[in-house]
Order: sequence, then structure tokens, then C-alpha cells
Amino acid sequence: MSPPPLFKHMAIIGPGLIGSSLLRRAKEYGGLAESCTAIDHNPDVIARISELGLADQATTRLEDGVREADLVILCVPTGSVDEVARSVLPFMAEGSILSDVASVRGNLNEIIERLLPPSITYVPAHPMAGTEFSGPDAGFATLFETRWCLLTPSSACPAGSVEKMVEFWKCCGAQTKQVTADYHDHICAMVSHLPHLLAFTICDTADHLSADLRADVLEYAASGFRDFTRIAASDPVMWRDIFLANRDILLQTLARFQQQIDHMAEAIRLGDNAAITDRIARGRRIRKTLLDKGQA
Amino acid sequence: MSPPPLFKHMAIIGPGLIGSSLLRRAKEYGGLAESCTAIDHNPDVIARISELGLADQATTRLEDGVREADLVILCVPTGSVDEVARSVLPFMAEGSILSDVASVRGNLNEIIERLLPPSITYVPAHPMAGTEFSGPDAGFATLFETRWCLLTPSSACPAGSVEKMVEFWKCCGAQTKQVTADYHDHICAMVSHLPHLLAFTICDTADHLSADLRADVLEYAASGFRDFTRIAASDPVMWRDIFLANRDILLQTLARFQQQIDHMAEAIRLGDNAAITDRIARGRRIRKTLLDKGQA
Repeated sequence: MSPPPLFKHMAIIGPGLIGSSLLRRAKEYGGLAESCTAIDHNPDVIARISELGLADQATTRLEDGVREADLVILCVPTGSVDEVARSVLPFMAEGSILSDVASVRGNLNEIIERLLPPSITYVPAHPMAGTEFSGPDAGFATLFETRWCLLTPSSACPAGSVEKMVEFWKCCGAQTKQVTADYHDHICAMVSHLPHLLAFTICDTADHLSADLRADVLEYAASGFRDFTRIAASDPVMWRDIFLANRDILLQTLARFQQQIDHMAEAIRLGDNAAITDRIARGRRIRKTLLDKGQA
Repeated sequence: MSPPPLFKHMAIIGPGLIGSSLLRRAKEYGGLAESCTAIDHNPDVIARISELGLADQATTRLEDGVREADLVILCVPTGSVDEVARSVLPFMAEGSILSDVASVRGNLNEIIERLLPPSITYVPAHPMAGTEFSGPDAGFATLFETRWCLLTPSSACPAGSVEKMVEFWKCCGAQTKQVTADYHDHICAMVSHLPHLLAFTICDTADHLSADLRADVLEYAASGFRDFTRIAASDPVMWRDIFLANRDILLQTLARFQQQIDHMAEAIRLGDNAAITDRIARGRRIRKTLLDKGQA
């Protein structure tokens, strides 16, 4: 006999790519929650969730959806987490857990803990999984498998709630690790936010070319450019929110990148063979490390 | 009955990823040449070509390999094309065609046409296909299928030779187009050289992080970073050659990119929502155009 699900009732607020993947996981694999509610302010999203049969209940009414839940996960865009937390907390049950999936932690811990009643705990999490697609149709039950989920609870958070959320994400197929919010934001600036910023900008640079050259760049798009455009197809509002939420750390990381690119440009300008090869060879080593770790 | 092959005897100098793919295409699909010779200064490469049975003849002796050929293709690194052309031209047969697969055209046309005897024609080509792997084991017969091959013959090149090489690349499964050398180098700076430069540099930036942060960046590598490292795994010497051969146009293209990234950084710094979203949305449009063209 399999053990009972981790939670009695899970409420997913914002069932887009991540949120609808959690609903699918709960439904198709079990183990997460006995029943699920999907909540969204957009009636079209709620209608679609109902059509797809992804939740036991789907509603636009926040208070109805969360009253019975012992786990509420905010799967809304990073920039809206604090505002939605503010709306939802007054309706949450005693002893329940509030979580989210925001890509940037910033000072969300401080903001939300100031709002928390003593009987509710906040366990923030960031599942590092996604595709360039969004919305309830884009989700799938295996999205989190083998991916990392970084948990960033504050030191004030009870160990029992953290352990329960670690189990939750393991049950989704993810590997988990606890890090501080600041450390999380430094890692994500490097592995995700800066690459996206560069991908958007290379498309932007192509877009500013003379009309005939731009047309041919699109015609002859080689693998380098093509790979960048895949990343650059991500949701503009989501990425604007992420860039703004992680502004300081992202701009620091970008400044370091620009320093490296200035060195590379100078080596090319001077025809400094050794310096160029050395820089390129580092890329190869990093790739090899990723392959060895099974991350590539 | 299928028509006779385009050439009697094809000599491939430098049977690495591209060269060995041409040999495999000739052998597995026919239509290119009645017989093939592989030539390389490295005896290990020649031994491997023989083991794989990819050519009718494999030799380290340049003069033996090209005497009988009516088509000689230099598949050597971009930076060595002029030097190898200088060594091979004195041994080439009257009426034969010299070609190459260099990724940067630069002033190769001028250099090589100065060396050309009147009875030999030079039809430079750049098949825009490749992987991050190199060497004779990395090639495969379908590498060029549906990919573009840009031909950059000078106006002095006889139309008959150009047409024959167009047929040759079509027979490899590629789409072909004739452009000027300078235009070719502008396109490739944007679609290939700049993306590679950025990918190498982002790895370089990660490599310069503090040891613990670097270790965790590799541990949690998200899709953006991972995609960049795939490109960055390419051969360092080949890419050094490409960057140096296309130095001026690449540095111009990089300068335009840096201008765009400065604008983006400023928009993030100022929290200019509209400017950020607008720039990101352009990436999406470019991606959509590529998808519509079947290039993604």
C-alpha cells in the first residue's frame, strides 16, 4: 500500500507552465495531495483547466480556493508574488504552508514573513525547469524530473515545513537543495538570467541590421544564432520581471561578462593567438565538466 | 540509369568533420565522384580514414593525391587555406577545380586568384553545417542536408565551374546561394561568429567566479547556460582562426551588440518596463520568423 499523499488539499494559484505541471504531476503520479484546486484571476485560464480536467476544483475566487488548503503554491510571475501573497494570506488555514516558485528571491523572504500570521509557514522554492512555452497547455507531469529545485527558507522557518516541501519536490522527481536567497540569486544570474539577457540582445542586434542583411541572417541562421533564438522566445513579461527583481546582481554579473568580452575583443584586435585559444579552451572545459555531471 | 558522377576524381585535403562527411556522402549516396582520395599531413588521420574505409586512396603525400583529381576541396582550418592552396596548386591537373569550405572568406579570393594558373578555376564555398565535434570520426553523410552552402566565387570565375559546384552541393543535400565574400562575412559574423564569441565568454565568466559559486553554477546549470556551453565546446584553434580571419567585421558586429546590451542594461537599471519588454519581444518575433521559415 502506498503512503498517503503529503498534503490533504493543494491550491495552485496561477496554473501556467509550472502550476499546471504540478497539477498534472499530482493527478498522474499521486503522492502530492488528496485533492487540488486551481485558482486564476483570468476566467479563460480557469475554463481551460476545467476542460483539461487538471484540478478537482477551478475558480477565479481566491478565498474559496485556499480556505481548505494545507498547501498553497503561488505559481504567478515573480513580480506578483508579494502582492498575491498579501491577498491570499488572510484566507489561509491555520497550520498551512505557503510556497511559491519565483525565479528570483530578492527580499521576498523579508516581505512575506512580515505578513505571515504565526500559524502559517512560508517555504519558498525555485524549480529550475521550464521551456520557452507558457500557459496551462504548456505543462507536463515530468517537467521537474532530474531538475534541481532550490529551496530558500529563512532561518526562522520551522524545519518540519521545510522537510515536507523537500519531500514534495522529490515526489515531483526533482533534486532539492537549500541555499540562502542571496546565493540563489547569484547562481541564477549566471546560469539563467545573463544567458537570457544575451540571447534577447543578440536577436535585438539582428533586428537592427539593414533590411536585406537581416532577411539573410534569418535565412542562413546557423546553429549558434538558432540556439540563442530558442532561449529568446521566452515570455517577455516574465523575463522583464525577473530582470527587474534581480537587477543589482544581474547588472554585477553582466559587468563581469562585459569585462571578459572586452578582453576577448582586445585579444582578437591584437591577434593574440595564445590569449584567444586560452579563453576558448575554458569553454570546452566547462562543457566537459557539465557532461561529466550529466547536466548537458 | 542514374547519370554519371559529377567528377571523375575528388581529392579531399583535411578529412575532418566536413571533409569526412563529403567522403561519406560520395561513398554512400553516389553522384559526386567516381573515386576519392583523402589527404592529410597527419598519418594518424590517414590511418583512421583507411580503417573506416572512407576513401579509395588515403595518403600524406599531397602531390600524389591531387595529380589525378578534377576536383580538389581544401577542408583544412580557415587560417590554413591560403597556405595549403599554395602547396597544392602546382600539382593540380589542367581544367580542374579548386574549392574549399572556409568559414570566413576575407581576402581569400584575391590571394588565391593571384596564385591560379589560367587552366584552373577556384570556386570557394562555405557549407553552413557543423557540430561541436571534429575529426574523421565526427562526420556523417547527411551533415549537409537542408543546410545552406554559400558560394562566393569572384566575378572572374567561369560560370561553368560555378554551376558544377552548385550541382555538387545540391547533390550533398544542401541549398546553395551565391553571395559576395564581404556580404558572406557580415552574415556569418552575425549568425555564427558573434554567438560563438558570446558562448565562449559566458563560460569564461563562469570560470572566473569564486570557487564555490563556480562549482554550484555547474551543478545547477539551467537551460540557458547549458545551451551556451554546447556551442562553446567547439574546437579552440578552428575558432581562433575564424575570429582572426573575420576580425574587422566581427569586431564591428560585436560593437553593435555591445551598444544594444548597454541600452538593455540601462533600461534594467532605470526600471524602464516598456523598453525592456520591447527588446525582449523582438527576440520572440525573430524566433517566430525562423520557425515560419523552418530554420528552427
